[in-house]
Amino acid sequence: MASTKPPSGMRDYLPDAVTKRRYVIGKVEQVFQRYGFLPLETPTMENLSTLLGKYGEEGDQLLYRVLHRGERLARSLTKEHVDIGDLAELGLRYDLTVPLARVVAQYGHDLPRFFKRYQIQPVWRADRPAKGRFREFYQCDVDITGTTSLMAESEVINAINDVLSTLGFHNVTIALNHRVLLRSMIEVAGIDAEMESTALVAIDKLDKIGPDGVQAELMQRGITAESARHLLSMTDASPDQNNVERLNTLRKLLPLAQAQDALNDIEALFEMTADTELQSRIRLTPALARGLSYYTGPIFEVISEDFSGSLGGGGRYDNLVGMFSGKQVPAVGFSLGLERILMLMEEFNMFPALQMAAQVMICTLPETPLAPVVGLAHRLRQAGITVEIYPESARLGRQLQTADTLHIPHALIVGPDEIAQQSYGLKNLASGEQQTLDETGLVNTLKPSPI
Amino acid sequence: MASTKPPSGMRDYLPDAVTKRRYVIGKVEQVFQRYGFLPLETPTMENLSTLLGKYGEEGDQLLYRVLHRGERLARSLTKEHVDIGDLAELGLRYDLTVPLARVVAQYGHDLPRFFKRYQIQPVWRADRPAKGRFREFYQCDVDITGTTSLMAESEVINAINDVLSTLGFHNVTIALNHRVLLRSMIEVAGIDAEMESTALVAIDKLDKIGPDGVQAELMQRGITAESARHLLSMTDASPDQNNVERLNTLRKLLPLAQAQDALNDIEALFEMTADTELQSRIRLTPALARGLSYYTGPIFEVISEDFSGSLGGGGRYDNLVGMFSGKQVPAVGFSLGLERILMLMEEFNMFPALQMAAQVMICTLPETPLAPVVGLAHRLRQAGITVEIYPESARLGRQLQTADTLHIPHALIVGPDEIAQQSYGLKNLASGEQQTLDETGLVNTLKPSPI
Repeated sequence: MASTKPPSGMRDYLPDAVTKRRYVIGKVEQVFQRYGFLPLETPTMENLSTLLGKYGEEGDQLLYRVLHRGERLARSLTKEHVDIGDLAELGLRYDLTVPLARVVAQYGHDLPRFFKRYQIQPVWRADRPAKGRFREFYQCDVDITGTTSLMAESEVINAINDVLSTLGFHNVTIALNHRVLLRSMIEVAGIDAEMESTALVAIDKLDKIGPDGVQAELMQRGITAESARHLLSMTDASPDQNNVERLNTLRKLLPLAQAQDALNDIEALFEMTADTELQSRIRLTPALARGLSYYTGPIFEVISEDFSGSLGGGGRYDNLVGMFSGKQVPAVGFSLGLERILMLMEEFNMFPALQMAAQVMICTLPETPLAPVVGLAHRLRQAGITVEIYPESARLGRQLQTADTLHIPHALIVGPDEIAQQSYGLKNLASGEQQTLDETGLVNTLKPSPI
Repeated sequence: MASTKPPSGMRDYLPDAVTKRRYVIGKVEQVFQRYGFLPLETPTMENLSTLLGKYGEEGDQLLYRVLHRGERLARSLTKEHVDIGDLAELGLRYDLTVPLARVVAQYGHDLPRFFKRYQIQPVWRADRPAKGRFREFYQCDVDITGTTSLMAESEVINAINDVLSTLGFHNVTIALNHRVLLRSMIEVAGIDAEMESTALVAIDKLDKIGPDGVQAELMQRGITAESARHLLSMTDASPDQNNVERLNTLRKLLPLAQAQDALNDIEALFEMTADTELQSRIRLTPALARGLSYYTGPIFEVISEDFSGSLGGGGRYDNLVGMFSGKQVPAVGFSLGLERILMLMEEFNMFPALQMAAQVMICTLPETPLAPVVGLAHRLRQAGITVEIYPESARLGRQLQTADTLHIPHALIVGPDEIAQQSYGLKNLASGEQQTLDETGLVNTLKPSPI
C-alpha cells in the first residue's frame, strides 16, 4: 500500500491547525485592511521566464518546475540530449514579491497610483526540510508601490508593528538600515564594489558569529585585513549609543554625499514615527544587510527580544518592477515570517481559546422520527446556531460521549415524545443540568451573542 | 521584455476579485460550520502514486507533474531513453476528494469517527482553457466519512442547499439518483456489466441531446437498439410524475432486490428531508449518472433553474478511502461549483455592496508636520477605523480627487493649525459637508457600528 503521508517538507493541516492558522491570518488581514492595504492573489504557477534570475543562483536551483505534457513532452524526450529547458516552462511561486512586480507591470493603469497590497499565499522551495523549514509554506507580504515617499516605509513598518502587537508579540525591535549606507561603508572601507554582496553576507552574520568571526569570514572571502577591520569598525560602531548618537557617528564616518542622503532618510523615518509605538522600537543597525540584492533604500528587520529571532523583514526596492515593465516604479515591502510566528505562538501558548466545536449535538432514540429532527436542526442552523446531529442509531450514552469527545457543550435529546410535544431537553454536558425548552427557547438560549 | 500575463488558463485576482471571492467563500464556510463541518487543508503537491489511477485515463493525462531537481534529474537525463516516470514523482492536487481519502487513511485515529470536513482550495488540471474553464481553479468540497447512515446524505444536501440560498440561488433543483439503480437498469436492459460506464456517459446527456440523441449514442457505443430503447424507457420514465409516482414506476420496472434497496434509500431520503426546503427541491432523476466511477450509492446534482446549469454534485463513495488504507471507510460528499457560482453572481449582479475602500483619507499641506499625522492615523486605526494617508506632498485638490477615485467617503484635511489645536475638519466627499471634530469626535463619528 502506498504511503499516505504528505510529500516530504509539506504538511496536512487538520482542523485544529487550520483554525489556528486562520485566526492569525484573520488578525493580520484586519490590521492590514485598517491601513488601507488591499488583497491580491496570484496563480500558483508562473512562467519560468518570470522567476529565473530573480532569486540568485541558489534560488533558481530551489525552484519547482512543472513538467511539459503530452506531445510537447514526447517531442522533447526524442531528442538525443534532453536538457532541463526542454522539459518545463512553468514554475511554482517562489515568493510574493516577484508576482507583485509582474502584476504592477501588467495592470499598472487599472491599479491605484499608490498600490497598497497585501498577499498571503503559499510559496514553494525545494530546500532540504528541517525543523521549522518546509518546502511549502505561507508568506505574508505587504507592499506599497508607486511612491518614493518615506511615508510608505512608515506605513509598512507601523502596520507590521501593529500586527505583532495584536498577536501578542510586544517586545520587538525594528532594526533599520539603508542599502546606500552599506554601499558607502564598503566604498569607504576600500572594498571593490564587485565584492559588495560577498562582504554583506559576512557582515549580516555579526549577530551570530561576532566581530572576530566576521573579520575572519571577510578575509576568507578575499577582503584585506585592513578593509575588513575598517568595515567592521563602522558596522559595529558604538553599540551602546542611542539612535541619534549613532546617526551622528555615522555622519562623521561616512562623509560621502550619498551616505548623508541615506542618513537623512533614516533621520526622517525616526521623526515621522516619533508619535507611535515605533519610537521606542526602531533601532539604527548598521550591520543589518538583508540578503536580497534588489533592495535600493531603507531596509528593516523585526526582531523578537523574547524569542531572539527575526519575525520578518523588508525594504525599499525601486528597480524590480522596472525589470518587468521597463518603467521604473518605486516600491517598499515587508514579508512577515508567518510560519515562524505560528510556531512561536504554538510553543508559547499564545492562542486564545478558539471555538471549533458545534454548540449542540442532537441525539436521537431508535424510535425517533427523523424528518422533524432534520427540520429542527435546519431551523436552528438558519438561526445561526451550530448544530451536529448524531448520524446513526446508537445508545444514548455513546452519543453523549461522542458529543463530549468533540467538546460540544450541549446535547439535545430528542425522542418521539419531544417531537410530539415540541418541547426539548437541553443538557449541559459539563454541569449535567437540563432545561426543558420549546424551539424559541432553544434559539434564545443557544443563539450566539452578537459581538 | 517577457510577458507579464499569468500563465495560460490561470488568473491574477486583483483586489476587487479577491474581495468578491472571499465574500462567497466566507458565506460558504459560515454555513458549513453551522452544520458542524471542520476545515481541512492539504498540500498543493501529492505523490504521483496517490494521484495516478484515481481519475481515469483522461485525468492521468491532465495531471501537472513536478520535475525532479538536481542530481536526481541529472541522473535521469543521462539515460538513453528518458521516460516520464524518470522525471517526476510529485503532482499537483487534481481534486479534493483523493487528498481527503489519503488524510482519513493517514490520521484516521486522530479524527472524529464521523469526520465532517470542508475544504476550499485550488486544484490544477492541464485542460484546454476555454470560457469558464481554467487550469487553476478552486474547488469547494464538503464530505462526511465514517457512516453509512443516510443522515450523512441529508446533512450534505441540506448544507449545500443552505449555502445556495444564502448566496441568492433560490430556484434550484436537487436531482437525486442511486448508482445501484443505474446498475440495475443496465442489467434489466440486458446490457453487459462491462458496458456500464460507456452506457452511463450516453445516458448522462439526456438533458442535452434528448432521447433520440441518447439512443443514437448508445448504439454507436455498441449497445443493441433494443437494449438502448429499454434503458431509455427506464431513465426517461414519466417526466411529469412526482417523486412518489416515479418511485412506484421504478419499483415496478426494476424488480431486482438490489434496486428495491436503492429505491428504499431514496424513499428514506425523501422522508428524512420532508421538513426542510429540500422537500420541494429534490427530484428523483433516473438519468442522472455523474461521471466519476467511484460512487457507490446515492448520487446528486444541484441544478439552477434560473441559469440552467449544474452548480455542483456529489454522492456516496464507500470504497475510495479503502484504496489508501485497506480498511473500508464509508463516505458521502459534494463538490460545489464555486467558479461557476462566482461567474453567475458576477453576471447577474448578485453581490451586495462590498466595502473595500478606507473610511477616511488623511490629506496634508506641505507645511504639515508628519509625526502627529502618523500618530493620529495610528490611534484611529487602533480604534478600528480604516485610514489612508496620502503619502506624498501634493495639491489638496489632487489628494481629494484620489480619495474620491478610491471611493473613500471622508477626507481629513490636516494642516499645522489643526495639529496645534488638535481639532480636525472631516469632509464628507459625497455631500461636501464638513464637521470640525477633536480626536474623540473623529473616533465616534467614524467608528464602525458593531454588527
